[in-house]
Amino acid sequence: MTEHSVSFDIASEPVRVLTGALVIEAARLAGVDIQQPCGGQGRCGRCAVQVTEGSVRRRSTLRLSPEDIAAGYALACQSVVEGDVSIAVPPQEKIERRLTTERTAVEVTIPPGYSPAAQPMRRVALTLVPPDRQDQTDDWGRIQTALRQQTGIDAFQISLTLLRRIGAVLRADDWAVTALLEADTWDRPNGPARVVDLWPGHIPDDAPLWGIAVDIGTTTVTLWLVDLMTGAVRAQVAEYNGQIARGEDVISRIIYAGKDSGGLELRDLVLKTINTLIATACKRVQVDPANVIKAAVAGNSTMIHLLLGIPAESIRLAPFVTAVNHIPALQAGVIGLDIHPEATVDCLPGVASYVGADISAGVLSSGLDDAGPVTLFMDVGTNGETVMGNREWLVTCACSAGPAFEGAGVLHGMRATEGAIEEVWINGGTFEPTFRIIGGGKARGVCGSGLIALLAELFLTGVIDRSGNINLKLPTARVRRGEHGPEYVLVWGSETQDGHDIVITRVDIDNLLRAKAAIYAGFTVLAEKVGAPLETAEEVLIGGSFGKYINVEKAVEIGLLPDMPWDRFRFLGNTSVRGAYLALLDRTARARITDIAARMTYIELSADNTFYDAFTSALFLPHTDLARFPTVQAAVASNANASHKSGKGT
Amino acid sequence: MTEHSVSFDIASEPVRVLTGALVIEAARLAGVDIQQPCGGQGRCGRCAVQVTEGSVRRRSTLRLSPEDIAAGYALACQSVVEGDVSIAVPPQEKIERRLTTERTAVEVTIPPGYSPAAQPMRRVALTLVPPDRQDQTDDWGRIQTALRQQTGIDAFQISLTLLRRIGAVLRADDWAVTALLEADTWDRPNGPARVVDLWPGHIPDDAPLWGIAVDIGTTTVTLWLVDLMTGAVRAQVAEYNGQIARGEDVISRIIYAGKDSGGLELRDLVLKTINTLIATACKRVQVDPANVIKAAVAGNSTMIHLLLGIPAESIRLAPFVTAVNHIPALQAGVIGLDIHPEATVDCLPGVASYVGADISAGVLSSGLDDAGPVTLFMDVGTNGETVMGNREWLVTCACSAGPAFEGAGVLHGMRATEGAIEEVWINGGTFEPTFRIIGGGKARGVCGSGLIALLAELFLTGVIDRSGNINLKLPTARVRRGEHGPEYVLVWGSETQDGHDIVITRVDIDNLLRAKAAIYAGFTVLAEKVGAPLETAEEVLIGGSFGKYINVEKAVEIGLLPDMPWDRFRFLGNTSVRGAYLALLDRTARARITDIAARMTYIELSADNTFYDAFTSALFLPHTDLARFPTVQAAVASNANASHKSGKGT
Repeated sequence: MTEHSVSFDIASEPVRVLTGALVIEAARLAGVDIQQPCGGQGRCGRCAVQVTEGSVRRRSTLRLSPEDIAAGYALACQSVVEGDVSIAVPPQEKIERRLTTERTAVEVTIPPGYSPAAQPMRRVALTLVPPDRQDQTDDWGRIQTALRQQTGIDAFQISLTLLRRIGAVLRADDWAVTALLEADTWDRPNGPARVVDLWPGHIPDDAPLWGIAVDIGTTTVTLWLVDLMTGAVRAQVAEYNGQIARGEDVISRIIYAGKDSGGLELRDLVLKTINTLIATACKRVQVDPANVIKAAVAGNSTMIHLLLGIPAESIRLAPFVTAVNHIPALQAGVIGLDIHPEATVDCLPGVASYVGADISAGVLSSGLDDAGPVTLFMDVGTNGETVMGNREWLVTCACSAGPAFEGAGVLHGMRATEGAIEEVWINGGTFEPTFRIIGGGKARGVCGSGLIALLAELFLTGVIDRSGNINLKLPTARVRRGEHGPEYVLVWGSETQDGHDIVITRVDIDNLLRAKAAIYAGFTVLAEKVGAPLETAEEVLIGGSFGKYINVEKAVEIGLLPDMPWDRFRFLGNTSVRGAYLALLDRTARARITDIAARMTYIELSADNTFYDAFTSALFLPHTDLARFPTVQAAVASNANASHKSGKGT
Repeated sequence: MTEHSVSFDIASEPVRVLTGALVIEAARLAGVDIQQPCGGQGRCGRCAVQVTEGSVRRRSTLRLSPEDIAAGYALACQSVVEGDVSIAVPPQEKIERRLTTERTAVEVTIPPGYSPAAQPMRRVALTLVPPDRQDQTDDWGRIQTALRQQTGIDAFQISLTLLRRIGAVLRADDWAVTALLEADTWDRPNGPARVVDLWPGHIPDDAPLWGIAVDIGTTTVTLWLVDLMTGAVRAQVAEYNGQIARGEDVISRIIYAGKDSGGLELRDLVLKTINTLIATACKRVQVDPANVIKAAVAGNSTMIHLLLGIPAESIRLAPFVTAVNHIPALQAGVIGLDIHPEATVDCLPGVASYVGADISAGVLSSGLDDAGPVTLFMDVGTNGETVMGNREWLVTCACSAGPAFEGAGVLHGMRATEGAIEEVWINGGTFEPTFRIIGGGKARGVCGSGLIALLAELFLTGVIDRSGNINLKLPTARVRRGEHGPEYVLVWGSETQDGHDIVITRVDIDNLLRAKAAIYAGFTVLAEKVGAPLETAEEVLIGGSFGKYINVEKAVEIGLLPDMPWDRFRFLGNTSVRGAYLALLDRTARARITDIAARMTYIELSADNTFYDAFTSALFLPHTDLARFPTVQAAVASNANASHKSGKGT
């Protein structure tokens, strides 16, 4: 096969590849990072590059207009190198940091019933009797005897790594040592205890002992640095998951992971994200990361598989099973986390491919598993996972809402970063909008909570009807037929960052309707399955950091959340990291989440026609069956009345 | 500091080192292997090289004559580079292979009471029900359920490495798999069971399951390849321990290991030896080494520490304790053994710095721990370890005999390889010797068994007296004053391989006397300590491959072994590898050796004056107290009589 030279305008050196290589492969070789939100499937069109010299063979031109193609644009993931080429890479969308850490920092108190005293790691100060010619016990035997006397524990484990250091440590401070002992783990509840480390001399009893609680979200990774002696959360940090550029949703990631070294690359990317967060949090509190000796990790099943380098393909393909729901206790060094290499890492247990450890952790931290009345828990995000139940029973399901609420699949959708419109109001008379922008500057797009608000306002003001059709006859320039069909102009170009109008199209609206319908159908089917109508839920607990910013009223108005008195809704924020924190802190919480994962009955919606029916019924605003949404029905009626009146007045 | 160029005649490229580097360091850098039998202490003189251009600073010239120094000779381990030099490396003594494998191959039968059925590794064939939309159990959960049903075992462990492969294996042969299950280990006697590996499809029940038993001797490493299904030893191989060139005895090795990367180097050397043996044995039986899934390793405490990279310094320094006597169960990949990376490796437990796992294994395989009558077990080698006892009690001690019986510290001493004189007879009238040479060719030197025979014959024929003095007045040219003082010529140069006379000097005899005195003193002190005179021992079991070739009569004549009826002696050969084999084969043997190591009361001789007294008394032939050696006394008297008569006759 022939070799060809591929030059990238933003790389220092051309690279050589064989005939048939993809442009994206050449880019990786050249160290050029091109985003692939769909994971390289040729679906999203975001990896488009411009061929400035030579030509490539385009296997797909999806999302490229004839003009684009004429100008040399090609999808990097779908274009084959067959000769020497020069390529210009458009500026890649930057993944900005969240506006401020304060936006994500939350107050943490230890819930009643939990205590850091029930944490299995502890320091034990030992003063050993030195060996002499009468007492020739080996070093490790000597430590075991002392530990036995001091703790009453019988059997101990030690690693080869530590055995290699034991002699030096014992003699460094005249046979005074501090042992770090782990009484039990996750999957070794009755011991033997493990000697995790040995330090020369005695460490004060009240010195901190560090652990981390981690939530690996598909979009955002959140990490808390915890003093295990007191339970105090000393730092909270969050960062976009470095895998985003290789796929925005779990399906795209799994597809990417299945290619060549894609799995290794995704593992490295998320490890880099977590390790950066560890470094940041530790620096803030001035702790050596090597002193972090415990970790609890939550995340959806795909995220956990990818973190550990376990192939996730079976999650994507029918019948959708994971390789493993409950990972054994592992050591940080084995995983690649930059903390103490022998730190125990508990990856919390999930239930199924699409109900992962993030949901078990959510149930743990919400206390749903110990609730008396029937309670509903939901995590709104790319996937909508719902759990219903109480201390007697728990059922769960997941529906693929798609990433619309995270800004993908929506023309001007974006993540909740600077420049995103997060709240919208529309005047029912003039159809003029008012909005709030994150960061306060000029608008760049609309984030999830903004989209919900926009949809609700468009509906209540009659800009769109119950099916999502835009009323082009309204007396306002904001409704018009655009390049993508009917659209509503939310911001005129004069007021946006890039000078273009920000609009919501009929296509966008359809995507949003499908997303909300899937989520709502999820919990109605769940409720039907257990014969407990949704209305019996005395509380609706909403987890996920996205959930935190939802306006309940508007979410009910579009039929995303059930029409219940608002005081039944509670927004819990990131319940996944909170659950990881509890499991980190207290072994009863650790045992409890195992029990939660075991108790949850998973209902696979795709196995069932009921879901499809429920989904179809929910594709309307707020729902086909208006009786389910009495307050919305009332609001629409009153608005129509008002609008009719004002219409009359003109 | 200045850099200098060092050229070696046998290296392709000169190397550059800083002022102050040792010649041996430059050699290592240049890839030139120079033997250091004393471990680089400047004691043995065997690393002498010739400086042909430039000069070096000699920190020590021990064992170099003024003529050597004038000719440019210098000790590589003691000479400092201070300018550019060229160095000629004399041919290094080759470590020959044992003559034939047959010489070491032994017949192995499974002793009564043991059975391969009590081996904890087993294959379990599973036919899994594939997942569907109703049964969404994860892969690992599915395997656990099937294993639980089929074995009755409750809890299972699995490694991350295997979790990464589990999905592919299950789907490779339509959900038929064979699991390799380890019910328990060494330090996890009550489970949980570990899934060691998973293979697609079903493997026939009677297919072999491979394990290795290894004895790491200071001099020789022995390895048996065992079919764990039947207990059959399918290959026996042995090779010199690759560490020999870095020190002949454990003390030299420990010293070498304490230098810079010496420990790493020694670990690599012994791993290379073992891995070569694994490859050889597996090739012979046409087994893929990756199919070896279990190992049991015996060896003295130093060898085990060095294998595992655990610093051994404390073994050498008062109060002589090990870092660890009982190593936890480890995995082959962690150690660096080229078998299945997840194979369990049991390093058998030792008792003390100088009574290691080789002795515990010896006791196990000799059955001493279950003997009714008092029994003596000894392993004669560089160190003489003795165990005395029966099923009620066990005591043990070790004495540093030095390497004289392995041919070191004796002018023409050598190992038991081709050209070594292994048996000697001397005519009491003419003082002419007859001897037997290993391999049958011309003589090169004398090995251990030859030295014992030679010493006995010299003594019985009156060439030497009870103190070891050579009678220079005898009417034979074979006694003479040589370069090193009085000596006896065993072989004239005309009959030797290199044309030089093979002699035994007064200095050699002293070294041999000290070695035999140490060993004999060891077991007399042991017997005294427990108040059981040596004679009460109904059996004397002699282990170690050296022991196998000893002529009991002659060993008693020099006072190395106690004067007891010969039928009480039993030579067991390599009891260490046999013990490892039993522990590999049967979990009751594995438990029994733990018990043996725990039961043995170790008596530290250096803590005690009794030993010194006993040693001094044993420095004579056969002993100061002739009454202890009645048969020798009789033989001497009869020989003297015969010699007197024949003397009269001439």
